Amino acid sequence: MRVLIMGAGALGSILGGFLARAGHGVTLVGRQAHMDAIRTGGLRVTGIWGAHQIAGMKTFTAAAEVSAGDFDVVFIAVKSYDTARAIGEVAHLLSEDTLVCSYQNGLGNAEAIAEVVGWARVVEAMVIFGVQIPKPGHVDVTVIARPTALGVYHEDAPVGRVQAFAKTLDDAGLPTVYSEQIAGELWRKVAYNSALNPLCALLNVPYGKLPEMEETRAMMADIVAELYAVAAAREVTMEPPTSGEYMTLFYEKLVPPTAAHYGSMHEDFRRKRRTEIDALNGAIVQFGDGLGVDCPVNRMITRLVKARERSLKGEV
Amino acid sequence: MRVLIMGAGALGSILGGFLARAGHGVTLVGRQAHMDAIRTGGLRVTGIWGAHQIAGMKTFTAAAEVSAGDFDVVFIAVKSYDTARAIGEVAHLLSEDTLVCSYQNGLGNAEAIAEVVGWARVVEAMVIFGVQIPKPGHVDVTVIARPTALGVYHEDAPVGRVQAFAKTLDDAGLPTVYSEQIAGELWRKVAYNSALNPLCALLNVPYGKLPEMEETRAMMADIVAELYAVAAAREVTMEPPTSGEYMTLFYEKLVPPTAAHYGSMHEDFRRKRRTEIDALNGAIVQFGDGLGVDCPVNRMITRLVKARERSLKGEV
Repeated sequence: MRVLIMGAGALGSILGGFLARAGHGVTLVGRQAHMDAIRTGGLRVTGIWGAHQIAGMKTFTAAAEVSAGDFDVVFIAVKSYDTARAIGEVAHLLSEDTLVCSYQNGLGNAEAIAEVVGWARVVEAMVIFGVQIPKPGHVDVTVIARPTALGVYHEDAPVGRVQAFAKTLDDAGLPTVYSEQIAGELWRKVAYNSALNPLCALLNVPYGKLPEMEETRAMMADIVAELYAVAAAREVTMEPPTSGEYMTLFYEKLVPPTAAHYGSMHEDFRRKRRTEIDALNGAIVQFGDGLGVDCPVNRMITRLVKARERSLKGEV
Repeated sequence: MRVLIMGAGALGSILGGFLARAGHGVTLVGRQAHMDAIRTGGLRVTGIWGAHQIAGMKTFTAAAEVSAGDFDVVFIAVKSYDTARAIGEVAHLLSEDTLVCSYQNGLGNAEAIAEVVGWARVVEAMVIFGVQIPKPGHVDVTVIARPTALGVYHEDAPVGRVQAFAKTLDDAGLPTVYSEQIAGELWRKVAYNSALNPLCALLNVPYGKLPEMEETRAMMADIVAELYAVAAAREVTMEPPTSGEYMTLFYEKLVPPTAAHYGSMHEDFRRKRRTEIDALNGAIVQFGDGLGVDCPVNRMITRLVKARERSLKGEV
């Protein structure tokens, strides 16, 4: 399999690394320091999937430097706010048969990709393992909640090929399954993230504190209820089917294992960098607006996170 | 005039001090350190109303220690969340002719007082000057936006006496007027405070930054629009009459002089103490709930402030 990883940060480079280790042809496009380190000494992997030193990947810092190469699949692994830019940059590398997989967080990425390549070639991934880059060239895998799910949105999509991709990834050591309900899988993960991530950042408390206050419980219930209303309007099949049942699952099963965790937005605030709020609560609001479903609580959370982001970055 | 000040903090002690300086009989009930300092060395006043050293006030640390004394007026000057407790504590000191004046911030204080003494004896004050206590026994007056307004809510209230009180306060050096529209005055100040104070605290930015971001502008517009909707349902006459006109006034005239200011909730967060959110955004929500006016943005802000308060105080 010939694979291009656009945005080889933590997620993208472990994906590329494990595929390369399994003998596939991998090209990475990522940041200078990380790419330099991988080119010079290979990718170092540590954590729950063992210790590996992986060589043999091609590295670039811009898609424009990559020569067209009959890629079977291009994985988009940039931050959600960069998806539109990234798909534009790799457009010249796509042949008619190249599939494009959003290997990212949040909502709206598939839509941005489909605008360029059409829905039939979009593959969605629901990625739910944790990785970080302690230093350039080194990826540490910290946690996996469930296998990554791959799936498609359109009846014309090549399901057989995508199922084969899922098996290829799984065989390469990246737990992966094919899902018939990829939209529901993704929205379910967004429910978790939208409830916890911004409140953790705004209130400066770990995930486990949020179920302990009646005010945050009420806000999280509203966030998820609005998400479920938008999902229903979009005909996304949710599991569990109601937001009330989701909240029970959330408190009983989903939050406890990550009680000590601080989300990505908390880290983004600390580093004064852009958050992915537009792909989480912001996307719920956007989709809701398009369908006439009002989402006042998600709108408010989105505005607060953006205002905090701006003020931390010194934009006002 | 015989006056009891219940809750002689910064506002209450400058009020009592200036009345005492004008020859009125003043009894203060306040915190130990401040009362001790005033009893020993008098009240030191500095700031925009000049430097004064004021002696002759009676000081107590609990209303139970005060002996009934034909008070003409009892000023309630405690934090809003303590109003119900305070009025209960002074109940034994009230004669049939004693008026009770809420010399406080926010909404809901008059209601708590009326529950004990009836609406006809409630006097409302809209206080809009800034004071602080640099150390016990010393009050510094930092700013005055407009004269304090006194007014009543009920047709049976002794308007003549309240007008005379307003003149007495004004003569004593505390700029004060009588207002026919005290509810509107109060709600207008609450609009200003509810829009700026919690966002300043949650986002850690001074008032002047809040009009500079589209997200905070949108939130403040929502906060004030909800307040106006509740005010309309309560038949409170607002000036200006629409929230849109208020926002214009707010950006052009009200915020600029206080652009460098951080609100009381910011200070409350810093000191890990309780805020007055329940008398501001929280009161808008409460009154709205009672009248069938939904206030999702004020509800959300209230919950966030309370959750932050709890986590800072280490309650979770």
